[in-house]
Amino acid sequence: MAHTNGILTIAMLLFDNYTALDVVGPYEVLSKIPDSKIYMVAAKPGIYKNIKGLQLSAEYALKDIENPDILVIPGGFGIDALLNDQDILNWIRNAHKTSTWTVSVCSGAILLGAAGLLENRKATTHWNRKEQLAKYRAIIQNERYVTDGKIITSAGVSAGIDMSLYLLSLIVNESFAKFVQLGMEYDPKPPFDSGSPEKAPTEMVDKIRQSTMTNNK
Amino acid sequence: MAHTNGILTIAMLLFDNYTALDVVGPYEVLSKIPDSKIYMVAAKPGIYKNIKGLQLSAEYALKDIENPDILVIPGGFGIDALLNDQDILNWIRNAHKTSTWTVSVCSGAILLGAAGLLENRKATTHWNRKEQLAKYRAIIQNERYVTDGKIITSAGVSAGIDMSLYLLSLIVNESFAKFVQLGMEYDPKPPFDSGSPEKAPTEMVDKIRQSTMTNNK
Repeated sequence: MAHTNGILTIAMLLFDNYTALDVVGPYEVLSKIPDSKIYMVAAKPGIYKNIKGLQLSAEYALKDIENPDILVIPGGFGIDALLNDQDILNWIRNAHKTSTWTVSVCSGAILLGAAGLLENRKATTHWNRKEQLAKYRAIIQNERYVTDGKIITSAGVSAGIDMSLYLLSLIVNESFAKFVQLGMEYDPKPPFDSGSPEKAPTEMVDKIRQSTMTNNK
Repeated sequence: MAHTNGILTIAMLLFDNYTALDVVGPYEVLSKIPDSKIYMVAAKPGIYKNIKGLQLSAEYALKDIENPDILVIPGGFGIDALLNDQDILNWIRNAHKTSTWTVSVCSGAILLGAAGLLENRKATTHWNRKEQLAKYRAIIQNERYVTDGKIITSAGVSAGIDMSLYLLSLIVNESFAKFVQLGMEYDPKPPFDSGSPEKAPTEMVDKIRQSTMTNNK
């Protein structure tokens, strides 16, 4: 394990209109790493809300955590408001220079793209964001999560859990990742099988695509 | 859909040392219900931390939300400190009298048990909490989630996502639940297959059981 000052430093970016599960799926998994600390980082310390009003606190400003071992960028509708935010883009670029791993969940990949980190790199994002991500010259993959060098991008929302367990196996080892999976009883049994555009009814896929176009998301 | 004053009211209990994914898995799913509001409720309004320091805010006190349509009890190590908390137990008993659905995630079922709601009812909880839940005379089931009357209990941590999608199909309809599943790209592909005590290596199961006994959890 790579450690900064003996503690593995994980920085997760927070912003308004994050997707709650994008944040907490990886948090739940990665917080189990021994001798690690997750820093919730935002443009300014404070409380940030998701689109429904859930309140999560970021205790640290960007400048407080400049060299995390692991950089985690969650997604959400709020991502679109950050794509020209030079403070955040520069923070991501700088943190990535020295990180051991740089990872994203869902539309968090778009922010990595805007920071220029995904040019000519294999990557994925939420199924409904792939065209947007391609504009940043990423080589779009249809996988649950995609590793290219030290960057791991994951598909939509819940994929952050799968990606984080895989990352755990890289940072600690496979046995520990399995142990954490057992602790969180992650033996998924969705009651329905419509979790991807290939599996869901076409009209649902179209409905999500259209609502996104309307909202310019 | 049952509505109070036109809005479906969902109350989620928050407390120190909750398990973050127990809270946010259901939040992510249930917050998609049209014309609904999720109220984060705690003994006192304020910020509550999980065992690793994640800060979630509860804006409402118990007395503020006495008749939710849906009552959600997440779990976590903090549950054990609440098993004799009469304010919380009475709030749960009262809310359950008028709720349409009363649900729990993981060790949240223990709190339902302590409130006397699971006597002679089929129920489940985290695999490592089943003996504890049996003391409250629940009829323990080995299922991802269990419905008995208007109570739905779910297995450990991540099972709250599966349970919530099922609940969504009951509250709205199956088509809407599939639509939400597609939106959160919930097509799980865990990198390992050790999410239950039946699937994980025996020594891992024993390690979790033993650490729990030591901690009197």
